[in-house]
Amino acid sequence: MSDVSVTESRPGDSRFFQRSGPFGLERLAEVSDSTIVVAASGKGLSEFRGVAPLHVAGPDEVSFLDNRRYLPLLAETRAGAVILSPAFSDKLPPDTAGLVCKTPYLAWARVATLFHPAPTSTGLHHSTACIADDAEIGENVEIGPFAVIGNGVRIGRDSVIGSHVSIGQSVEIGARCRIGAHAAISHARIGERVTLYPGVRIGQDGFGFAVGPDGFETVPQLGLVVLEDGVEIGANSTIDRGSMRDTLIGAGTRIDNLVQIGHNARLGRCCIVVSQAGISGSTELGDFVTIAAQAGLIGHIKIGAKARIGAQCGVMSDVDAGADVIGSPAMPFREFFRNVATLRRLSRKSAD
Amino acid sequence: MSDVSVTESRPGDSRFFQRSGPFGLERLAEVSDSTIVVAASGKGLSEFRGVAPLHVAGPDEVSFLDNRRYLPLLAETRAGAVILSPAFSDKLPPDTAGLVCKTPYLAWARVATLFHPAPTSTGLHHSTACIADDAEIGENVEIGPFAVIGNGVRIGRDSVIGSHVSIGQSVEIGARCRIGAHAAISHARIGERVTLYPGVRIGQDGFGFAVGPDGFETVPQLGLVVLEDGVEIGANSTIDRGSMRDTLIGAGTRIDNLVQIGHNARLGRCCIVVSQAGISGSTELGDFVTIAAQAGLIGHIKIGAKARIGAQCGVMSDVDAGADVIGSPAMPFREFFRNVATLRRLSRKSAD
Amino acid sequence: MSDVSVTESRPGDSRFFQRSGPFGLERLAEVSDSTIVVAASGKGLSEFRGVAPLHVAGPDEVSFLDNRRYLPLLAETRAGAVILSPAFSDKLPPDTAGLVCKTPYLAWARVATLFHPAPTSTGLHHSTACIADDAEIGENVEIGPFAVIGNGVRIGRDSVIGSHVSIGQSVEIGARCRIGAHAAISHARIGERVTLYPGVRIGQDGFGFAVGPDGFETVPQLGLVVLEDGVEIGANSTIDRGSMRDTLIGAGTRIDNLVQIGHNARLGRCCIVVSQAGISGSTELGDFVTIAAQAGLIGHIKIGAKARIGAQCGVMSDVDAGADVIGSPAMPFREFFRNVATLRRLSRKSAD
Repeated sequence: MSDVSVTESRPGDSRFFQRSGPFGLERLAEVSDSTIVVAASGKGLSEFRGVAPLHVAGPDEVSFLDNRRYLPLLAETRAGAVILSPAFSDKLPPDTAGLVCKTPYLAWARVATLFHPAPTSTGLHHSTACIADDAEIGENVEIGPFAVIGNGVRIGRDSVIGSHVSIGQSVEIGARCRIGAHAAISHARIGERVTLYPGVRIGQDGFGFAVGPDGFETVPQLGLVVLEDGVEIGANSTIDRGSMRDTLIGAGTRIDNLVQIGHNARLGRCCIVVSQAGISGSTELGDFVTIAAQAGLIGHIKIGAKARIGAQCGVMSDVDAGADVIGSPAMPFREFFRNVATLRRLSRKSAD
Repeated sequence: MSDVSVTESRPGDSRFFQRSGPFGLERLAEVSDSTIVVAASGKGLSEFRGVAPLHVAGPDEVSFLDNRRYLPLLAETRAGAVILSPAFSDKLPPDTAGLVCKTPYLAWARVATLFHPAPTSTGLHHSTACIADDAEIGENVEIGPFAVIGNGVRIGRDSVIGSHVSIGQSVEIGARCRIGAHAAISHARIGERVTLYPGVRIGQDGFGFAVGPDGFETVPQLGLVVLEDGVEIGANSTIDRGSMRDTLIGAGTRIDNLVQIGHNARLGRCCIVVSQAGISGSTELGDFVTIAAQAGLIGHIKIGAKARIGAQCGVMSDVDAGADVIGSPAMPFREFFRNVATLRRLSRKSAD
Repeated sequence: MSDVSVTESRPGDSRFFQRSGPFGLERLAEVSDSTIVVAASGKGLSEFRGVAPLHVAGPDEVSFLDNRRYLPLLAETRAGAVILSPAFSDKLPPDTAGLVCKTPYLAWARVATLFHPAPTSTGLHHSTACIADDAEIGENVEIGPFAVIGNGVRIGRDSVIGSHVSIGQSVEIGARCRIGAHAAISHARIGERVTLYPGVRIGQDGFGFAVGPDGFETVPQLGLVVLEDGVEIGANSTIDRGSMRDTLIGAGTRIDNLVQIGHNARLGRCCIVVSQAGISGSTELGDFVTIAAQAGLIGHIKIGAKARIGAQCGVMSDVDAGADVIGSPAMPFREFFRNVATLRRLSRKSAD
C-alpha cells in the first residue's frame, strides 16, 4: 500500500481517541476503588499517561490482569502499574506498582475511561441539519451534518445526534443520549443516557398482516418503541414498534449488532442480547437475562429473570428464571452436552 | 428520567399516527365484512373513535378477539364494539356490540386501517433533495430531505421517498411505493405498492468471484433485482442483484428485517420470509412458501409451493410442495421431533 | 403495473451497466488466457459485443460452460463463442468458436469484466458533500452527495466515496477503494482496492462492559479496525473496533452481507465469510479459511489455515488447519452426517 501503512496501532491513538491526564496513582486508586501496592524496588513514576496491555505498556502506563493465563506476561511487563486481584498481587515485578481490587475488570473500565473519556457534545447544530421549527432541542445538544429532526421532536440536554440521523415526528429522546450516524428512529420514546450505534432502525412497522382474498393485508402497527434509561443498541440492529402496545427495552439493557427485536417484545432491566440474536413478537424477558449470539426466540413466550440462553439456541417455549439452556430446541446445558456425547458414542458403535 | 417520561402509551397516539373518524357501526361492518350484533342492553354509542385492546378499550372504541384464551378479557371489556367470530358472539357483555365475521383478524386489519390510514404522499420534493434533471418523477410523489435520485430514474405517482434514500441510475419504481429512510437501491426495477423499510439494500453486487493466481477476482454481476407489485422488504435486509439473470421477488411477498437474499434467487408470489433468514444464490421458491426466522437455504435448490421451512432450519436440498420441514439438515417436522425424543430417551438410559 | 413493466432483462443492460467493446476473438483469448478453437463451419463473427448465458446468447456474444449438466444447452446455443474446458471442446456446435482453458470461471470473470468494467471515479466532489478543511483527498477521488469527511481523514487516489457516507476523524483510506452509499466508518485504517458495500458499519465500539454496582459500565474500546488491501465487506455488515489491539481483516478477504465481526478478531488473507455468519471477539482465522452462511464462532478461539466451517455451524473450540467441520457444536463433516444417519435409524427402530 503506497498511501496508507497498515501497521498495528497503540491503543488509544490520540488521532482517534480523546486523551486525558496525566494522573497520579492516588487518583487511579480512587477512581478504581483499589488499594495501592508500591513497587517493590521503590522506583516508579508518580504520573501515568495512559493504558496498555501487559506486553506493550511502558513505565508511564497502567495495565491490567484478570486471568491466571496471563501471569507470564505479568512477570515480564514494563508497565508502571497493573490493576489486579489480591490473588496475584505478590506476582508483581519489582518496578511495577499494583492497584489491587476484587473486581479488576470494572476497575480497568473506570481507569481506561479516566484516560479516554467518551466524546461529549460540542453543542453545535451543523448548518446542513434539517430541524423542524417546533422541535424542542435541549441545551448543549450536538446535531451532525444532514441530520433530519421531525416535527414535535424533543431532545434532552447534552445529547449527541450523529450525521445522517433521521428522527421522525414526535419522537422523544432524553438527556445525554448518543445517536450514531445513519440511525433511523420513528414512533419512539427514548430515556436518558441511551446509546444507539450506527444504522440502528427503531420504530418501523412490525411484521404484521392478515391473509386477505387478494394477498396479505397490512395490520396497522399502533404502538411505539420505548427504550428506558441507559439502554444500548448495536449497529444495524432493528426494533419494530408494537402493534397494540409498546415494544419495551428495560433500563440498562445492552443489545449487540444485527439483533432483531419483534413487535410487542418486552425486555427487562440489564439484559444482554448478543449479536445476530432474534426475539420474536410479544416475547417477554425478565431482568438480567442473557441471550447469546445467533439465538432465536419464538414469539409469545416468557423467559425468567437471570436465565441464560446459549449461542444458536432455538427457544420454542417458556424458560424458567435462572435456567441455562442451549440447543435447538432449547434444553438444559447438561442435557444438551449429554445428548451430544450419547449420539457420538452410538454413532461410533454403529460404525464399528 | 427528567425530560422524558416513559410510560405506556395508548395505541394509535395521535402525535405519532394519523387518525380518521369517527365512524358508525354500519361503516365498520361494511369495511370489515361483518354482521352487527346490537348490544344486549340496547345501549351503545353510535360513533366510534378508534381501536384498542380489550382491557384498554372504552365505550367509543372497537376491540378484537380471535383466541379463546382471551375470553376472560371479553367478559370484562368496556369496549363499545368487538370484532369476533360467530363462535364467541354469545359471550359479548351487555353493553358491547359485536362485529361478527369468519376472519376476525382480517376484519381487524381493515377497521384499524380505517381509523389509522397509512401516511400518504405530501407531493412535496424537499429542497435539499438531489434529483437528476432527467429523472421522471410522477405526479404527487413525495421526496424527503437529502434523498438522491440518479440519472434516468423513474418513479410512479403517489410514491413516497424517505429521507437519505439513495436511488441509482436508471432504477424504476412504480406507483404508490413507500421507500423508507436510508434505503439504497441500484440496478433494480420495482413494481407498484412496494414498501421498503429503512436501511434496505437492493441491487448491490452478489457475492461472486473466481480464484485467480493472486487472490479472488470479481465476477461482474450483470443482472438486476426485480420486485413485483406489493412486495415488502424489512429493515436492513439485503437483496443482491443477479449475476446473469435477475434476482426476482414475486408479487405480494413479504420479507422481514435483516434477511439476506442472494444473487439470482427467485421467490414466488405471496411468500413469507421471517427475520434473519437467508436464501442463497440461485435458489427458487414457489408461491406461498413460508421461511421462518433464522432459517438458511443453500444455493441452487428448489422449494415447492406452500412448503413451510421452520425456524433455524438448514435446508441443503429440494423441498417438496406443501412439505413442513425443520432441523439442520432439514427433515419433516414429525421426524425432527421424534429424533429429539429418541435422543433424550437414549441419553437418559445411558446416564442411568 | 402501469408505469413500470417488470420483465426479465438481458444481462449487462446498458442503462445500468457500463459497456466496452466490441472485441475480437484474439483479444478475448488474450484476456482469458485461452486457446481459440475456430468454429467447425468456418463461419463466425470477428467481433463480439457482450456476454450472455448459453440459452440467451447470440452470434455476437460470448458465453460460458463449466458444468457437464449444461451440455444440452451448449448443443443448442447460438453464442458466437463459448469459454469452456478442454474436456468439452469437442462438443461445440458448428457455428460456435471455443475459448478453451483450464479455469473457465476465472476466464469468464475476465471476459465479462472486459465488456463491463467496474465504474471508475469521476473525480468530482459533489457540491453538497461536507469535507473537512484538513482532510487530504488524493487525485481523482469521487465524493458523492451528502458525504461527510471528518477532520484529518486521508483518502488515496482514484477512490470513490458514495452518497451519504460518513467517515470519522483521522480515518485513512487507500487508493482505488469503493465505499458504498450510507457506509459509516470510524477508527479505521483501510488499505488499497478495498470495497465496502452499502450500509457497512466499521469501527464502532465493540460490545464490552463490566458489571458495576448500578448496572453495566462501558469498557473503552481503544483499538482500531484495520482492513488490508483488496478486502471486500458486504452490505450492512458490522465490524467492531478492537478494545486494546486492532480488529484486523487480512488482504484479499471477502466478507458477504449482514456479517458480524467482533472486537479484536483477526482474519487472515483470502478468507471467505458468507452472509449472516458471526465471528466473536478475539477469535483468529488463518489464511484461506472459509466460513459458510449463518455459522457462528465463539470468542477467543483459533481457526487454522484453509479450514472450512459449514453453514450454521456453531464453533466452540479451536479448529485445525485444513479441517472441515459442521454442526453445532462443530464436528468433522463425516461425523456429522454419520450422526444424522444414526439418529434417523434409531428413531425409526423405536417407532416400529
